[in-house]
Amino acid sequence: MRVDNRAPDELRPLIITRHFTKYAAGSVLVQAGNTKVICTASIEESVPPHVKNTGEGWITAEYSLLPSSTSVRVPRESTRGKVGGRTHEIQRLIGRSLRSIIDLAVLKERTIWVDCDVIQADGGTRTAAITGSYVALMDAVQGLKNKDLIKEDPVLNSIAAVSVGIVNGVVLLDLCYAEDAAAQVDMNIVMTGDGKFIELQGTGEEYTFDDEQLAEMLKMAKKGICEITEIQKKVLEL
Amino acid sequence: MRVDNRAPDELRPLIITRHFTKYAAGSVLVQAGNTKVICTASIEESVPPHVKNTGEGWITAEYSLLPSSTSVRVPRESTRGKVGGRTHEIQRLIGRSLRSIIDLAVLKERTIWVDCDVIQADGGTRTAAITGSYVALMDAVQGLKNKDLIKEDPVLNSIAAVSVGIVNGVVLLDLCYAEDAAAQVDMNIVMTGDGKFIELQGTGEEYTFDDEQLAEMLKMAKKGICEITEIQKKVLEL
Amino acid sequence: MRVDNRAPDELRPLIITRHFTKYAAGSVLVQAGNTKVICTASIEESVPPHVKNTGEGWITAEYSLLPSSTSVRVPRESTRGKVGGRTHEIQRLIGRSLRSIIDLAVLKERTIWVDCDVIQADGGTRTAAITGSYVALMDAVQGLKNKDLIKEDPVLNSIAAVSVGIVNGVVLLDLCYAEDAAAQVDMNIVMTGDGKFIELQGTGEEYTFDDEQLAEMLKMAKKGICEITEIQKKVLEL
Amino acid sequence: MRVDNRAPDELRPLIITRHFTKYAAGSVLVQAGNTKVICTASIEESVPPHVKNTGEGWITAEYSLLPSSTSVRVPRESTRGKVGGRTHEIQRLIGRSLRSIIDLAVLKERTIWVDCDVIQADGGTRTAAITGSYVALMDAVQGLKNKDLIKEDPVLNSIAAVSVGIVNGVVLLDLCYAEDAAAQVDMNIVMTGDGKFIELQGTGEEYTFDDEQLAEMLKMAKKGICEITEIQKKVLEL
Amino acid sequence: MRVDNRAPDELRPLIITRHFTKYAAGSVLVQAGNTKVICTASIEESVPPHVKNTGEGWITAEYSLLPSSTSVRVPRESTRGKVGGRTHEIQRLIGRSLRSIIDLAVLKERTIWVDCDVIQADGGTRTAAITGSYVALMDAVQGLKNKDLIKEDPVLNSIAAVSVGIVNGVVLLDLCYAEDAAAQVDMNIVMTGDGKFIELQGTGEEYTFDDEQLAEMLKMAKKGICEITEIQKKVLEL
Amino acid sequence: MRVDNRAPDELRPLIITRHFTKYAAGSVLVQAGNTKVICTASIEESVPPHVKNTGEGWITAEYSLLPSSTSVRVPRESTRGKVGGRTHEIQRLIGRSLRSIIDLAVLKERTIWVDCDVIQADGGTRTAAITGSYVALMDAVQGLKNKDLIKEDPVLNSIAAVSVGIVNGVVLLDLCYAEDAAAQVDMNIVMTGDGKFIELQGTGEEYTFDDEQLAEMLKMAKKGICEITEIQKKVLEL
Repeated sequence: MRVDNRAPDELRPLIITRHFTKYAAGSVLVQAGNTKVICTASIEESVPPHVKNTGEGWITAEYSLLPSSTSVRVPRESTRGKVGGRTHEIQRLIGRSLRSIIDLAVLKERTIWVDCDVIQADGGTRTAAITGSYVALMDAVQGLKNKDLIKEDPVLNSIAAVSVGIVNGVVLLDLCYAEDAAAQVDMNIVMTGDGKFIELQGTGEEYTFDDEQLAEMLKMAKKGICEITEIQKKVLEL
Repeated sequence: MRVDNRAPDELRPLIITRHFTKYAAGSVLVQAGNTKVICTASIEESVPPHVKNTGEGWITAEYSLLPSSTSVRVPRESTRGKVGGRTHEIQRLIGRSLRSIIDLAVLKERTIWVDCDVIQADGGTRTAAITGSYVALMDAVQGLKNKDLIKEDPVLNSIAAVSVGIVNGVVLLDLCYAEDAAAQVDMNIVMTGDGKFIELQGTGEEYTFDDEQLAEMLKMAKKGICEITEIQKKVLEL
Repeated sequence: MRVDNRAPDELRPLIITRHFTKYAAGSVLVQAGNTKVICTASIEESVPPHVKNTGEGWITAEYSLLPSSTSVRVPRESTRGKVGGRTHEIQRLIGRSLRSIIDLAVLKERTIWVDCDVIQADGGTRTAAITGSYVALMDAVQGLKNKDLIKEDPVLNSIAAVSVGIVNGVVLLDLCYAEDAAAQVDMNIVMTGDGKFIELQGTGEEYTFDDEQLAEMLKMAKKGICEITEIQKKVLEL
Repeated sequence: MRVDNRAPDELRPLIITRHFTKYAAGSVLVQAGNTKVICTASIEESVPPHVKNTGEGWITAEYSLLPSSTSVRVPRESTRGKVGGRTHEIQRLIGRSLRSIIDLAVLKERTIWVDCDVIQADGGTRTAAITGSYVALMDAVQGLKNKDLIKEDPVLNSIAAVSVGIVNGVVLLDLCYAEDAAAQVDMNIVMTGDGKFIELQGTGEEYTFDDEQLAEMLKMAKKGICEITEIQKKVLEL
Repeated sequence: MRVDNRAPDELRPLIITRHFTKYAAGSVLVQAGNTKVICTASIEESVPPHVKNTGEGWITAEYSLLPSSTSVRVPRESTRGKVGGRTHEIQRLIGRSLRSIIDLAVLKERTIWVDCDVIQADGGTRTAAITGSYVALMDAVQGLKNKDLIKEDPVLNSIAAVSVGIVNGVVLLDLCYAEDAAAQVDMNIVMTGDGKFIELQGTGEEYTFDDEQLAEMLKMAKKGICEITEIQKKVLEL
Repeated sequence: MRVDNRAPDELRPLIITRHFTKYAAGSVLVQAGNTKVICTASIEESVPPHVKNTGEGWITAEYSLLPSSTSVRVPRESTRGKVGGRTHEIQRLIGRSLRSIIDLAVLKERTIWVDCDVIQADGGTRTAAITGSYVALMDAVQGLKNKDLIKEDPVLNSIAAVSVGIVNGVVLLDLCYAEDAAAQVDMNIVMTGDGKFIELQGTGEEYTFDDEQLAEMLKMAKKGICEITEIQKKVLEL
């Protein structure tokens, strides 16, 4: 039995609230059980140096835990003076994932900043962040279209993410923090709405896994992504 | 006429929501018009070096703007690698103010971390942060009492804050961002619930002011503080 | 009786020495009792990014304590790798104050750097810094006029600063360090030569104060500012 | 045809040189084609704070590109003052992978520092680093055994890593830089010598991939890992 | 003819003022022509980690240019967030030189912090700093003796420093900034009062020099050191 | 008798290997006994700000110890977030020395980055770095000539460096680490191939030295430089 009585292949309740704050071009509160992340998309009319003069746009993601988001307070990275390795890893994953479903040439020389600020953390913050950022990004892109700043639709696909893992030898979907801390294998999967892989990262925690276990995890992840995609569609009224 | 049709001495609608997130000992969402700040209080069972072995506790405040909280995205201070001067100034003000109403000896050798994270900024974020932090602090202190970790009540008084200013020669209460940006004088006032000053910071922006204007601003601030104190009491069911 | 036998409303001996060092456009040693600050004004023929292309100039202040300026050596901020909160707060106050009496449009696109380096600290370093910086600034501005780099006089007013406070329930002017450390209320006041407020910052240190005490402090501050202004005038031969 | 005439499932020539430098407890030069990495293992008789008093040891990895290792010089991270996101990601992967095959309790309270310094980079530096670090680690562990500092063998398994990817729709093993830069999918796989997964990280670069392509990549990776494991065994005379 | 009409082997007027500020254990203003440096010595009753538990003391030097000390303002190193290479080099030289004439075992486990803050820079600031720091150090040591904190005299020798150089092919003593900027060879020499070398650093600036030129420079430096030593003795009333 | 049985005036075996890595314009492995340094020269088609628009080029050197290069692991400067004083001092010495034998005007507006990465440290790393960098620089310059990017030869002279010192009262050439750690005087000398001084830095370590000892050290250094120059010539086939 899972700590919150879910079936092994059951997602936590997923609630996506659009227009959560009012100044960003896209702003979403995503809740996956007790995990809550504010995902926003902001437009900047310039691009970072490595993209300059290519005629293409860019998408950059930043991720942060609010100090009070966890049961033991996390020191603020601004106060420590540097962004930690875990944060780097997560924000690179989010940015890379989102860029893979956007035609950057259509964006033209502008940057979309995606900010994922976790206000309550109960595991799966990075996958929730990707799931929510997609919705915020859609709103920001719609804004560009409404202002006639872009002509075509740069969005090539939808995107969603979920975690799977092995806990006490059992494959589970959408791990909460207590499960994640006890997991033997932890895997994050990012997929398109039509069931293709964008990114998959699986890690044995002092544990190894074989092909069969991998296959079972991938199957369960697909089921989850499928359900998340449906919720995204509904929220976006697509 | 003010941009939002308020009378000169009228506060913006003030809504204080307790238990906004679930892991911090105290957690409040404070909304003053369009300004929204998450204020939390977290307990740490140790104190910073300068207090060690004094038998007393400490209260530290940190303040941050979410990048998407303003209409033009604010770069993240963790990414820039340092906390800016404005942030330093504000978090020192919040910490100093809260410490002035708490008997630190009663807290014993523990730290209360107060985190003020602005998720939407429309002026008056530092005063809203103080107003909300008081409520979060009360909840955290109550938690300590419930667990019998402290015997007496360390709270000596209530505290609230508000801004006043002069815009186009007119004294106004509780400035929103558009008013703040145009203000000739900007003043932040922190007071106890029984009408004593804790802190007052007034600045002429390429402008000077005289005793009479000062008196008018102070009077209006007191009226605002009085109303805010009533709302705090009601929320705290005191 | 005060530690140095002054009357409650008596300033410490104030000595302002112009042309203290020879390379800066303006260079002043200001001594307020045992507090000694080198204030210099240096011209740079460019402006920071946020002013660029506005046709206006800028004034930036930096403040630093020499490590040996206090009885317990202060670690050097360059060695610690960051500027502390207190320094940020003080240098923002100095810069803002000086900008309020200068017509930045007359300066044109150049920056005046004001550096306040405390070589001996006995309380009131920030107010001494403002008082001295005004004189250094006047010399730097005169230099610009002598070289015909500016046509009009950008100086709109004179400026001076002083501290007041409440120690053991008594209102005192121009606190030395021993008084400051024991103060119940500490207030810094910046005024123009003709008696208008530019900035006022009052803080109760685990103490609160009422209107009457505020009025008494403001009155005493005005007296002090008045005397300081006379000394500035004499030194500048105005 | 591949740029270096290899078959799709052919590894680059892999040469592992033990005892490459003389002061580290283990020191290896690993060459995978033109990629050359110095991997060393150094013993420190203490552990980081989060492990202190657990009785267990720790393994930390650091990774760095020499500035001249690539055709366009890479700025030194020490000069930039911070470790970049890519470096963080890689050194976390190396450390996590190595820890998964070591019984940290056997090590007791000591740290093994694994340093991977790339002196020539032609793709696959992170996988070469893992492959080489295993050998350096074995030498360092043998040193501990020789000195009777540990009683049992802490090594639970062997470990090796390799990259696979899809270039122009074709699945390739052990990508060189030119292939990596053009890859549609890039996957790094870390496995034990007996064919279990430790870590797998696959990324579509503006591209997605399906189950069939994943299966083909995994199969080819296993073949590569198998061959690498043989070379490791031979070098270690196991 | 030199810019200030000195003979090639003539020192600039050297004035050493003791007790320049009042809180440091030793405090000296040293003036060598237009170069002015505040040198202080402060006692701290602890030692840095690498000396701990050796029973010996330590001397650390820090050096800084005030931003306004030069004709073009120097950015503050605290604001830039790091200490530059030139500063590192100079403060290491000062510390190493002073430690060479002190018996650190006599000091016992305490640190003497030597701070050299240049308030006006006209060349030769590092040598003036060493010359002045010796006097400040003597006062600080005398203070320790007066308080019976040390029993013996830890001072093994006196120390002074001077620059020599080659400008337009002519060997000159004690270069001012204009000469230094044009020098073909620049050499700083630190010697004991009895004529032994402690440190010598000679640099050809896009120029080389031979044995004969070296001999001439060393001879002239000795003459200068001899005169400086006399002035130090007089000031210290030895 | 020296620890490695050398005569007092005997160099350690010096081996210079060209084309050590393949992507840098010049790449050398220099071995002086057990000291091993990779010296590379990379071309960048731009110059740092202080040279911009002068029509001249620049040479910058960076120096680093690999963490495992010494018997006790050295923390990585990128991880510590700043370059230490010793590193600053060494890389400034290397850069200054190399610039002194190059006609920067012939280079035109390009930078040559010289990177010295010590992979094994047994004393004398900075002098080995200069000796090896000269060879790498020659290869990089030849590359520029081969591509017709420069017309004339910018190399004015050859350059080499060596250490001398006094250990137990005896003057020794080319100190290894054990000797260096015990040295009473440590001196690094940089000379041209035709026997002129470029830089000399001598330091008494809690010890002083006189003219006679200096003369003996300089004589021995010259002998060493002479032999090193011959080896450089041979390696470069000049």
